[in-house]
Amino acid sequence: MNSLKIWNQAEKIIPGGNGLLSKRPKRFLPKGWPIYYKKAKKNYIWTLNNQKLIDFSIMGIGTSVLGYANKSIDDKVKKAIDYGINTSLNCIEEFNLAKEILKYNKFAQQVKFAKGGGEAMSIAIRIARSNTKKYKVVFSGYHGWHDWYISANLNNKKNLNNHLLKNLNPIGVPKNMKNSIIPLRFNDHMQMIKLFNQNKNAGILVIEGARSEYPSKKFVNAINKLKKDKKIIVIIDEITSGWRECLGGIYKQVKLKPDIVVYGKALGNGYPISAVVGKKKFMEKSNHTFISSTAWTERIGFVAALETIKFMKKKKVPQLIKSRGKKIIEGWEKITKKNNLNIKTNLFYSMPTFYFDYQNDNETLHTLFTKYMLEKGYLATNYMFVTYAHNENEINKYLKNCEVVFKKIKKKILEDKIPKKFYRKFNY
Amino acid sequence: MNSLKIWNQAEKIIPGGNGLLSKRPKRFLPKGWPIYYKKAKKNYIWTLNNQKLIDFSIMGIGTSVLGYANKSIDDKVKKAIDYGINTSLNCIEEFNLAKEILKYNKFAQQVKFAKGGGEAMSIAIRIARSNTKKYKVVFSGYHGWHDWYISANLNNKKNLNNHLLKNLNPIGVPKNMKNSIIPLRFNDHMQMIKLFNQNKNAGILVIEGARSEYPSKKFVNAINKLKKDKKIIVIIDEITSGWRECLGGIYKQVKLKPDIVVYGKALGNGYPISAVVGKKKFMEKSNHTFISSTAWTERIGFVAALETIKFMKKKKVPQLIKSRGKKIIEGWEKITKKNNLNIKTNLFYSMPTFYFDYQNDNETLHTLFTKYMLEKGYLATNYMFVTYAHNENEINKYLKNCEVVFKKIKKKILEDKIPKKFYRKFNY
Repeated sequence: MNSLKIWNQAEKIIPGGNGLLSKRPKRFLPKGWPIYYKKAKKNYIWTLNNQKLIDFSIMGIGTSVLGYANKSIDDKVKKAIDYGINTSLNCIEEFNLAKEILKYNKFAQQVKFAKGGGEAMSIAIRIARSNTKKYKVVFSGYHGWHDWYISANLNNKKNLNNHLLKNLNPIGVPKNMKNSIIPLRFNDHMQMIKLFNQNKNAGILVIEGARSEYPSKKFVNAINKLKKDKKIIVIIDEITSGWRECLGGIYKQVKLKPDIVVYGKALGNGYPISAVVGKKKFMEKSNHTFISSTAWTERIGFVAALETIKFMKKKKVPQLIKSRGKKIIEGWEKITKKNNLNIKTNLFYSMPTFYFDYQNDNETLHTLFTKYMLEKGYLATNYMFVTYAHNENEINKYLKNCEVVFKKIKKKILEDKIPKKFYRKFNY
Repeated sequence: MNSLKIWNQAEKIIPGGNGLLSKRPKRFLPKGWPIYYKKAKKNYIWTLNNQKLIDFSIMGIGTSVLGYANKSIDDKVKKAIDYGINTSLNCIEEFNLAKEILKYNKFAQQVKFAKGGGEAMSIAIRIARSNTKKYKVVFSGYHGWHDWYISANLNNKKNLNNHLLKNLNPIGVPKNMKNSIIPLRFNDHMQMIKLFNQNKNAGILVIEGARSEYPSKKFVNAINKLKKDKKIIVIIDEITSGWRECLGGIYKQVKLKPDIVVYGKALGNGYPISAVVGKKKFMEKSNHTFISSTAWTERIGFVAALETIKFMKKKKVPQLIKSRGKKIIEGWEKITKKNNLNIKTNLFYSMPTFYFDYQNDNETLHTLFTKYMLEKGYLATNYMFVTYAHNENEINKYLKNCEVVFKKIKKKILEDKIPKKFYRKFNY
């Protein structure tokens, strides 16, 4: 089957071709990316044409932290399916998962579940706003598609530019929401203090646990102080960063003191489940503002998350992921240095990223990297999510292939043979 | 295990005890409802203590339209699990399901998927608003928990009272959203015309496909005319009503001409999947406004929905559900007439409802009905969702038990022995 042909048809009947920007082929290798899968196991993916590829890319955009089709998780899920997944009564696993999550989030006393990450962030914002009259949000990072977030671009279309996605258009978001949310540079504690001083109606802070870097000590201290002095409600979005480097969120490693933490993605190893975890005094307002959805009480997400946490603990997955991520970043640095290629790397171990660092053509170089790696049987781009499935042996082989590809790219640069108009696109 | 004890603990760590108002025990029989399930099959549920009950109540609040643990659906889902459910590439079933849904929705050319119903309604509103400058919504019925909807109560806390849930508190919804949404009485076509005439910024209509009644001919004609004359964007929320009485929504039966239709619940037979189905000219704006979520591309929902539609078609499920629902409503009417009990019934076949019709104590009578039916081994209340699992034989037995219970209630009324302060609570 020709996956590009199918994709072209899909784009006609599904806006954008699928429901998630991050899985669109143009973001990796327009026309060359395999697009669809037939089968996946550990970090291997079989395309529609049964080509076996090794995945060192987004691993289900961070969801499949234990690798694809993990037997321990899937067996539990299949058993739950045999026993019914959505009935008139409640499943006990919702309660069990709440208990389990609270064990690893000592600051919190209550949990509320949803299926998606963006959805869970909306819940967190509603809960925070129901606890303060200072409804304006100061934020840094990417937090989904909902109105409360996209309204950041109502007064300036570039407000979200440094927060993962560029040029997001706020059409469809009511203009009344203008100025309800204020962008902040990650780790800029001085700007943060200034923003809260200037905006008397700003009572909520939303940041990611980590993205391209960890929260700095100064940033953490300033947040903890702000919370204490000004009663700012602190929400940490750990949807991408949580349950990878530790059981819980990065906030624990850096000693941030949150009021609400939001998890998703890795928590269910690919099965949709998200959680809003918070202090009782804030969370119990959910009983007064209406937040309820049928899909949230379906059983599978809870079952998968319970087993994922158990597996992570038993196999010491967070420690493995951190050390393997470190190995990959250091591997890239070593190889590129050896071959005189200029790259920059990010220091977030579980999500290694490098950027070519030339005057021009960097996006072409990233696209070339994907193209050449694909020729070697790898799904790869300049960022990746490290999982339990990426074992030492796999990483060594991957880095060897990276070296061959980096050399090839260096040769292209030296020969001034970088193709024109050959690059991925991140817009939507 | 004592389910009430567990529930009391759950309420301490999960606001409200679970994620869905409709599954909370106080809405049925405070202190007597079994609350949790261990196992479910067809329309049978086993409690934590292994008591087998027959479910003639909410059937997973309308999700499990084919009955619990339907082997045809579950086998396909389990196979999909073995092949990986959330990878770096896309699953082909997203495209296949879009194609399949469009077959049954001829007015539409594009589909966008989510997991939950309320979430899908938010997408529909964003898309509609991105297609008109008249951003205000005229609505009737229940449409979830999101800000766009709950903001109806910002200027009057009773605005949502006649739309399924009473006294919803809009705390946490920014006050800027005041007057962005206007309540309409279902089937009141004169009020609808007036509201759109009075509110120059109202360009969107949102109604349910059906709830306690079908849309009347006058209502349908007025909507179709309004759409034509004023270019009002018409959204039909078929989350509760769709994929029960026909393949698609009730709008088809009553000849409503929508621009966007939203499905959920029954579509996946309990597996979370929802769909925003609409005209291309409106839907393609999703490419310009950002709407994207990781959870939406997970495979299970698509697989389950494809198989659910196939099963419904093959077994003529909609026809069966309609005739069985009719039988239940007529059964209630016959029995109560025979026993001189005053009830009123709703005429929405796939979701039969009755109300005791006395001066006082009606909620107590409903609660007594649940109590006495439970003593006979039934999960039952004054409304139910008819499914494929409720076969003729089951319905006959159920109606016989209803008669015994109605007689018992009549006796209590005659002897003036209706208990005091014994009733369910719908508040949250």
